[in-house]
Amino acid sequence: MQAIAVRRGESEPVVLDKPRPDPAPGEALVRTLRVGIDGTDHEVIEGGHGDFPDGDDHLVLGHEAVGVVEDPNGTDLDVGDVVVPTVRRRPNGENEYFARGEPDYAPEGQYVERGIVGAHGFMAKYFTSPADALVEIPESLTELGFLVEPASISEKAFDLAFASRSAFEWAPETAAVLGNGSLGLLTLAMLEESGRFDRLYCLGRRDRPDPTIDVIESLDGTYVDSRETPVDEISDVHEPIDFVYEATGYAKHAFETVDALAPNGVGALLGVPGDWEFEIDGGRLHRELVLHNKALVGSVNSGVSDFESGVDTLLALDDDFFDDLVTGVYGLDELDAAFANDDSTIKTAVEFGGR
Amino acid sequence: MQAIAVRRGESEPVVLDKPRPDPAPGEALVRTLRVGIDGTDHEVIEGGHGDFPDGDDHLVLGHEAVGVVEDPNGTDLDVGDVVVPTVRRRPNGENEYFARGEPDYAPEGQYVERGIVGAHGFMAKYFTSPADALVEIPESLTELGFLVEPASISEKAFDLAFASRSAFEWAPETAAVLGNGSLGLLTLAMLEESGRFDRLYCLGRRDRPDPTIDVIESLDGTYVDSRETPVDEISDVHEPIDFVYEATGYAKHAFETVDALAPNGVGALLGVPGDWEFEIDGGRLHRELVLHNKALVGSVNSGVSDFESGVDTLLALDDDFFDDLVTGVYGLDELDAAFANDDSTIKTAVEFGGR
Repeated sequence: MQAIAVRRGESEPVVLDKPRPDPAPGEALVRTLRVGIDGTDHEVIEGGHGDFPDGDDHLVLGHEAVGVVEDPNGTDLDVGDVVVPTVRRRPNGENEYFARGEPDYAPEGQYVERGIVGAHGFMAKYFTSPADALVEIPESLTELGFLVEPASISEKAFDLAFASRSAFEWAPETAAVLGNGSLGLLTLAMLEESGRFDRLYCLGRRDRPDPTIDVIESLDGTYVDSRETPVDEISDVHEPIDFVYEATGYAKHAFETVDALAPNGVGALLGVPGDWEFEIDGGRLHRELVLHNKALVGSVNSGVSDFESGVDTLLALDDDFFDDLVTGVYGLDELDAAFANDDSTIKTAVEFGGR
Repeated sequence: MQAIAVRRGESEPVVLDKPRPDPAPGEALVRTLRVGIDGTDHEVIEGGHGDFPDGDDHLVLGHEAVGVVEDPNGTDLDVGDVVVPTVRRRPNGENEYFARGEPDYAPEGQYVERGIVGAHGFMAKYFTSPADALVEIPESLTELGFLVEPASISEKAFDLAFASRSAFEWAPETAAVLGNGSLGLLTLAMLEESGRFDRLYCLGRRDRPDPTIDVIESLDGTYVDSRETPVDEISDVHEPIDFVYEATGYAKHAFETVDALAPNGVGALLGVPGDWEFEIDGGRLHRELVLHNKALVGSVNSGVSDFESGVDTLLALDDDFFDDLVTGVYGLDELDAAFANDDSTIKTAVEFGGR
C-alpha cells in the first residue's frame, strides 16, 4: 500500500510502498480516508521534533486521521464505522497512564506518538489501532474528521486551564490566541462557539490582505500584529486578557503571557520550542503571578474524552468557517501542494480514499 | 489605647497611644488577645512592601490577630466570641469581589489590607471589623488563633494548586516547601497532616544545629540546603516533586520550580519579590511546562472559607509542633524580642491581653 513518509537524513515527504498491516488481537484494521497536516508535521519533516521508530529508516507521517473500519477483528467496532485515532500508544506493554485512559499524562519514555515520536503515523492506505484508541464519529463529520485531533488538543488545554480557575468564581470576558496557524484559528472558532468570552483576540505577524486575518475577523476577533503590539503590551494597547492560549512555540510568548493576563487570568501553553536563553524581569513576573493569582498551565496531547468533546464542538461550528480554514485537500500525487507552508495555505489534508 | 506602629520615614516598630475605635454599623468591637508576626511584617517595617493609610503618619502593624468580641454592636456575634479577622477590606464602598466573598481575588486598587496596604492593622488593644470579616474559632484554639491567618494563606494556595490538577487523575507522592520561615514550616506541617504526600522536603540555607531543621525533621521531612542543592537540582539529587510550595520570595525559585516538578506537577507561588532581571533558558522551561503538563499557580491572601479550613487543620496538628514553632509570645514592653529576626526565632506573637 502507499504511504507518505520522511526518510532518515532527508527533509521532505515521499510516497513509499509498504505492506498492508495486519491487526493484532484487540486491534481493528482501518482504511484511511483523510489525514490532516499541521505545524508538528512540518517540524517532524524538518527534524526539529519527534523521532524515528527503532530500527526503521523512515517514519510514516500523519497524526490527524479519519478512516473507516475495514476489519473490526473481533473488537466492538463494526465494518463501516467512521473513526478517528488518538495519537499516543503504549511503548512496551501497559503502564499506569494508559491503564487509566490518560496516556496524554504519561511522561517521556512511557509513550510513542504515531507519526511523531517512535511510531509510524496514519498517512497510509490502511492502519491498525487498538479499538480503545479509535473514537467513532458521526458520518456527517467524515470529511472534516481530520480536524477532530487538533480540536481535541484545545479541548484538553481548555479543561486544564479552566480547572485551574475552578477554585473561585471566574467570570472571564476576554480571550487571546497567540498564533494564527491552523490550530490557532480552529481554537479561536472553538472559543467563539463556546460563548464564554465577550471579546476575542488573535496574534499574528502578517500584512493585510491575508486569509488568516480574514478568518479572525469573520469570527469577530481582533487581529493583533505582534510586530506592532508585542504580547506583553496587549494589556495596555487593547485590554487585559482573562484566557491566553499560546500556540506559537515562541518561548518569549510564554513569559510575556503573564503581562498580557488580567488579574486571576490563566495562560495555556502548547508550543514546543527548542532551547533558548534570554533575559526576563523574573522578579516582576513572579510578583505579578502571585499578587494577581495568575496561572500558567502547560498542556500536551489529548485523550479519548477530549476527542469526544472535539467532535461535539466541530459539529457546532459553521460550514463557512471550515470553508475558510481548509484551503485544500490533495491526493498522493500532489504532495507539494499538500505540504505547502506559505501564507495562502491554512489547513490542508491528504486524501487516501473516499467512503 | 496602646498600639504598635511604624512611623513614616522610620523602620522600627514603636508603641503609640491611639483612641479606641468605635464600631460603625455592621462592625463589631474586638478586644485583641494576640497578634502574630511574619515576614510580611518585617517587609512592611523595612518599607519594602505595603503602604501607609492615606494622610496618616504611621501604620498600625499586624494582620495575624485573634481577639474576643467586646461589643457585637447589633451584629450576629456575641460578647465573648473568640474571633480571627480576615485581612482585606473594601477601599471605598462595595465592589464585585467583596460582594461575592472573594476579596482575595480583587485586583490592586480594589482593596486595602489591614496592617499592610493602606489600612491600620490589628496590633492595638482594640480593633473594629465588619462582622462578615470575623471568623469565629473554637475556644480551645484561642492561644494559637494568630496562626489561623497564615494557615489560611496555605489553604488557599493548596486549593488553587490542586484545582489546577483536577482535570485528570493526579496521584501526588512528593511535596517540597521552598522556605523554612514560619509560613514554610507551618505549611510543611499542614502537608504532613493532610496525608496526601508520602515524602516531604523543605528548602533552607542554614547550618546545623538549627531549630528550623529540627522542626522539618520532626515532621519526617527531608531538609534540603539550597546552598548545596539548588531548586532546579532537587529533581536529580532527591526526586521529582509533585507539588512545590514557594514561600521564599526569591524570584529565581519561581522559575527553577519548573525543573523541580515531576511530570503533571504544580508549583504554588506565594513570594512577593522586587524587580530582578536575570537570564533563564526560557525555551527549555516553556517546553518542560508543555510536554509534561506542568503548571505554575500564583496565590495571594485568603478568604473566609480558607480561614475556616485553616481552623480545622490547626485543630488537627500536634501540640509538640506548635511548641517548636512558636518560639515566643511577648508583651508590649518586649518589642525587640517580639520582632527579632534571627536564626533562633521562628514564630512570635505580641500579647495584648488575656481572655
